[in-house]
Amino acid sequence: MVIKKYTAGVLQYIPFFYVIWSDDLLSYSEVSVVKKAIEQDKSLDKKEYEYLLTCLDKNTPPSYEVLKNWKNVISHSQVQLIESDTYPLATFSQKMLCHHFGDCPFNAHLKDIEINLGIQPNHYKHLFDIGIVENVVSNFYNPKEIDTILKGDQATVIDGFRDFLKDPIFEWNLKRDKEAFRLHVLKQVQLLAKKGYGAMSYTEPYGGSNNMIGYAAIFENMMYVDGSMTIKFGVQFGLFGGSIQKLGTKKHHDAYLSETGKSNILGCFAMTETGHGSNVRGIKTTATYDKETDSIIIHTPGKNDNKEYIGNALHSTMASVFAQLIVDGKNHGVHAILVTIRDSNHNLTPGVTIEDNGYKLGLNGVDNGKIWFHQVKVPRENLLNKYGNITADGTYHSDIKNPNKRFFTMLGTLVGGRICVARAGLGGAKKSLAIAVKHALQRRQFNDSIKIQEDLLMDYPSHQLRLTPAIASCYVYDVALTHIMKVYSDPKIEDKRKIETQVAGLKSIITWFANDTIQECREACGGKGYLLENQIADLKGDVDIFTTFEGDNHVLLQLAAKGVLSDFTSEFNSAGFVAVLKLLGERIGDKINTINPTYTNNVDTAHLYSAKFHTHAFDYRTRRLTYTVAMRIKDYIKKGVPSYQAFLKVQTHLLALGKAYSVAFAYATFVDFTETIVDQKNKTLFQKLGTLYALHELRKDASWYLEQGYISGTKSKALRQRVERLSTELRPHIGVLVDGFGIPKHCMQAPIAK
Amino acid sequence: MVIKKYTAGVLQYIPFFYVIWSDDLLSYSEVSVVKKAIEQDKSLDKKEYEYLLTCLDKNTPPSYEVLKNWKNVISHSQVQLIESDTYPLATFSQKMLCHHFGDCPFNAHLKDIEINLGIQPNHYKHLFDIGIVENVVSNFYNPKEIDTILKGDQATVIDGFRDFLKDPIFEWNLKRDKEAFRLHVLKQVQLLAKKGYGAMSYTEPYGGSNNMIGYAAIFENMMYVDGSMTIKFGVQFGLFGGSIQKLGTKKHHDAYLSETGKSNILGCFAMTETGHGSNVRGIKTTATYDKETDSIIIHTPGKNDNKEYIGNALHSTMASVFAQLIVDGKNHGVHAILVTIRDSNHNLTPGVTIEDNGYKLGLNGVDNGKIWFHQVKVPRENLLNKYGNITADGTYHSDIKNPNKRFFTMLGTLVGGRICVARAGLGGAKKSLAIAVKHALQRRQFNDSIKIQEDLLMDYPSHQLRLTPAIASCYVYDVALTHIMKVYSDPKIEDKRKIETQVAGLKSIITWFANDTIQECREACGGKGYLLENQIADLKGDVDIFTTFEGDNHVLLQLAAKGVLSDFTSEFNSAGFVAVLKLLGERIGDKINTINPTYTNNVDTAHLYSAKFHTHAFDYRTRRLTYTVAMRIKDYIKKGVPSYQAFLKVQTHLLALGKAYSVAFAYATFVDFTETIVDQKNKTLFQKLGTLYALHELRKDASWYLEQGYISGTKSKALRQRVERLSTELRPHIGVLVDGFGIPKHCMQAPIAK
Repeated sequence: MVIKKYTAGVLQYIPFFYVIWSDDLLSYSEVSVVKKAIEQDKSLDKKEYEYLLTCLDKNTPPSYEVLKNWKNVISHSQVQLIESDTYPLATFSQKMLCHHFGDCPFNAHLKDIEINLGIQPNHYKHLFDIGIVENVVSNFYNPKEIDTILKGDQATVIDGFRDFLKDPIFEWNLKRDKEAFRLHVLKQVQLLAKKGYGAMSYTEPYGGSNNMIGYAAIFENMMYVDGSMTIKFGVQFGLFGGSIQKLGTKKHHDAYLSETGKSNILGCFAMTETGHGSNVRGIKTTATYDKETDSIIIHTPGKNDNKEYIGNALHSTMASVFAQLIVDGKNHGVHAILVTIRDSNHNLTPGVTIEDNGYKLGLNGVDNGKIWFHQVKVPRENLLNKYGNITADGTYHSDIKNPNKRFFTMLGTLVGGRICVARAGLGGAKKSLAIAVKHALQRRQFNDSIKIQEDLLMDYPSHQLRLTPAIASCYVYDVALTHIMKVYSDPKIEDKRKIETQVAGLKSIITWFANDTIQECREACGGKGYLLENQIADLKGDVDIFTTFEGDNHVLLQLAAKGVLSDFTSEFNSAGFVAVLKLLGERIGDKINTINPTYTNNVDTAHLYSAKFHTHAFDYRTRRLTYTVAMRIKDYIKKGVPSYQAFLKVQTHLLALGKAYSVAFAYATFVDFTETIVDQKNKTLFQKLGTLYALHELRKDASWYLEQGYISGTKSKALRQRVERLSTELRPHIGVLVDGFGIPKHCMQAPIAK
Repeated sequence: MVIKKYTAGVLQYIPFFYVIWSDDLLSYSEVSVVKKAIEQDKSLDKKEYEYLLTCLDKNTPPSYEVLKNWKNVISHSQVQLIESDTYPLATFSQKMLCHHFGDCPFNAHLKDIEINLGIQPNHYKHLFDIGIVENVVSNFYNPKEIDTILKGDQATVIDGFRDFLKDPIFEWNLKRDKEAFRLHVLKQVQLLAKKGYGAMSYTEPYGGSNNMIGYAAIFENMMYVDGSMTIKFGVQFGLFGGSIQKLGTKKHHDAYLSETGKSNILGCFAMTETGHGSNVRGIKTTATYDKETDSIIIHTPGKNDNKEYIGNALHSTMASVFAQLIVDGKNHGVHAILVTIRDSNHNLTPGVTIEDNGYKLGLNGVDNGKIWFHQVKVPRENLLNKYGNITADGTYHSDIKNPNKRFFTMLGTLVGGRICVARAGLGGAKKSLAIAVKHALQRRQFNDSIKIQEDLLMDYPSHQLRLTPAIASCYVYDVALTHIMKVYSDPKIEDKRKIETQVAGLKSIITWFANDTIQECREACGGKGYLLENQIADLKGDVDIFTTFEGDNHVLLQLAAKGVLSDFTSEFNSAGFVAVLKLLGERIGDKINTINPTYTNNVDTAHLYSAKFHTHAFDYRTRRLTYTVAMRIKDYIKKGVPSYQAFLKVQTHLLALGKAYSVAFAYATFVDFTETIVDQKNKTLFQKLGTLYALHELRKDASWYLEQGYISGTKSKALRQRVERLSTELRPHIGVLVDGFGIPKHCMQAPIAK
């Protein structure tokens, strides 16, 4: 028989060699892993050693006949492959020796190869004609440990909150009628307030624990229950309460903050107008100080100047109204004023008109409405006067003299909300991935004609490629958002302009990612994903608008790009063209970066999997885009094109820069984070997830890297192959990876995900 | 003053030169256009001629000082730019001469430059500091002419149908309750039937006009009303009626077809099972012939073997049930049998159980349900016996001996439905684009600080890039679908296997395109797009499932790829690995294609805009992917990997091939079509739309073309720039382009689109 040709020393390596050569992914570092193992394997005699080395020569790969013979040898062994073995292939080899030679010590060198090449049963089990004991999900990693790593120092808060979500009020139900839905959501929000979650981010005197990081974490977890509840909660406590907390002073805090946190006062955040959404500075509502009565008169001047899409508008008794503040005939720009819009009987106060916005694509449990003000008079004290005040003698005063800067300082208080929206989007992506993965680990469709059982969806390479990079991205974005919230809420950092830029970018890429992922999950679950009961549909409708509200993504990405261009020194949100340009002149020189030619063709695994390479590539792209967009703008300006128009002409370029910067930033944050993971096993897993994220992102922009000559065609192909390979490699752990999100069982009630 | 330096002959060219040099898009063919005009301009003296030529040298572009001086000259002219002039820039030049020199004949050479370079006011109006008379939409093209071109020989049918849609029953209304919604949709379908639209594709004896092409066209137009109506219509007349028409014989036609066309019989198409969606061949429902009673017994054997997601299930009295036909203990494979599921009182017949599928992400006006059969007995005559019959003596007979071939012949009858689904998706994309464009032509946001009026959304380059290539794609896909339906319904073509492959591919790329487009339109309309009243939200929910039903896109693309691999000779839908591989051996040699090196670096406009280049590139990609995937499969097989596993391993490669082939096919069809347009003006417009589609598609795969060395980095960048430029160039016509879709005014009732 064929087997006679091989000695025991050679035979044990044959399953490995067959696996290695059946795919064409062998790189030099992989060859060296195997070589090293063989060199250190003292049980081999010289002849065996030399033969094995000849089988590793990339220039003279084994012939098809040799490969087929190897396969026969493996098939004839009558040994079963046990996927749940700790080292399945090394164990398989060992048993093969047992079968043929009787004697069979476990060879640690084989184990080393198995570990270092990341060989997984699902890479090779299809290749062998042998009995296989399948193992749908590996238990090599522990989802609780993963979840603990993500929760970080908020573990107690998050665990308590998840446990609280067992309350029957949070059970999933079909909700078609907006009135009933809104009332239910209101009750949920009131219960959350009662339990202290509403006030969480306020300081202790107002019922809170000053914990913005925990607040953001529970905000994400709310998405496991319902999007409408999450958003109404955010409007009530984050936007309305937040405006009192951050734009008001002690008198406002004392009067309203505790009651808002308890939801005894319901309030809305009346900023957006029908005519002015993204361009907040252009809102038309006026707040005119009337000296005679020492009051402020709120007024909607024109047809499209009503407040629009205001969440909580149907339930609120108060509103933070953003308006142009006019004192003594002079417009001091946008300020926020507290207005009582309903009396204790829930009747509208004189001069206030509110209309329901009606049904939406999603979030129908949020009561959005339009608000008109007709000469509504409120006391001067109602001006949220932290950044701009009207003194008792009726004069306007602000410590921030530049009105532009004042405006952006006020808007800066919205940044926390943007982080929360991104977190909520991420929560939606995680839940839909968990549902899609659990479905794919049960659902079978099609098979090889010789098999009785059909294949699991999760075993299709295309299915792995659809879901696995998205899971990796969730881990990266989770870490990035936790990090940015920590920095944002750090009182030691006074100048938040850089953080604001980073948040603008992260919010954009993460909410788009969330939408794409939910859509992919819907399709990956087929018709089942289309049924409301399976809960992906609601997520899709709810998360959709996250790309628009709290700052339209296209607008935010341009802000991010302008931040990068001005090195984060210009005011956030500012058109700020001239300032940016002045800085460009000074800085462009620094931004040029030459391509490192040794990188261009390096397709070695160790290099492709190294954070150093990914970071270099991301930074290169950001810098290069910064440089080229700056050069283009300068060129236009030199030719006499006005700066506003010059920026318009490079708009798509700015969007690319904003994205590139944000991806680079998220990844850098994640790499730093992985360094802090103490446990080596989990650290390696997180690094692998980071690598998959990085390679997947690099692939998206591969055409650009190729155009720049940063990577060669061969390297570009290698990136694609590595993304596929990593997705397959993580297949045995995919169930654990979605369990690692920590979504409570009581929130995973979709029939297909049980 | 600066002006003194220029003679009249030179001065008239200065606006053109400034526009040309302010962007860096000047290619050799563009230089030659300008050169040619100057050479033919006999009014120039030798000195003027030579000066102008020096201004065109790409190697020594004019200095910034010269450019700024030109700009000053233009600004000082005190001439207004009238966008609605037929040749705005040439006319502007003429007026400038008038102003400075008094004398000013219209110079036809300037006009030629303007036309041949495709210069549009929105390219340059921002560059000049002059008065501008804006023109939101040009009337250069006529939407009715465009619509007529698309309607082709179905104009009468389509116009009649669109007019009929004025009936108040088709008005948009909010529908939250599925019961009310379903009843309303049922009434709509019954009215459509009454007017003869249901039977349209049947032959004359059964109330139709045998017009499948017209049927598909009105199917698309139904989407302008409502997705649920469209799909229920398709289930009743296309799937249920179609199964009788195509799988049944005269006795079935006579008994049921006319009544089905009139909707006097309501029927459903019971194929999919809970356990078997994509893998139809694996369905478990049995149809066992009982010789004693000469009847067929329909039975659901197991837990997940019920019929699932069956449209019309709650309203139907009959069902075409697909089941494994067992005669005399032998399974003859999947056949369709007519089963009466409800009696005249609408009570379920004995043994039949039906359950509502409940609420879905969209299409809630379609009554989807699950159906179980418990030993349901129907007469032998109910077997739809065109391809397989049970004779009076109780033996099975079929003219198609190969059960595999028989199965795929039956499934082939579904292909018409796939074309219709793609058409409906396209209708959804068109309507959402029309809404988004109309909104963007009214909505203003942000401005240059020196301007009072804010800019129209449609004037932002990023907005143009988001919407314009999608509009161009609609035109290409419209033509491709009309073409494929013509070929499909041509009785002269007997072997439909190639068409089936093409339809599988087109259905996939078009339904994905539709989803992406609707999403982009939702976001492009901001919060307004999220309101149900603006009708994008419904389209989003309805069209979503089009990627899954009538064949999951991932499955269909693999079928398309296998079709290409086997050169369309294997059975449609077949796993058919062995057949494919046998053919590969014979054909691979032909498929190799070398890269034409002259193409790699050619960034000349004439080349980039030529259909010859696009076609070559698309064909190259299809052939190359065919070759490489075939080589990979062969390689795996040679190494002993079983063929099923080899195909699995190249799954993502197959998906890429399926897409590439479909894009190439759609574009080739469109190019052929443009050749038939008689009117030169519209022909040029269609060609430009085709070019935008082609360049946009090439850009999506730019990384692949770069990896292959098919295009250089410079050419890749040029493709991107050209996509942006064409999108801007079509800006003045964008309103006309969406009006060209012919969506009736009475179906465009979204408040933001009025």
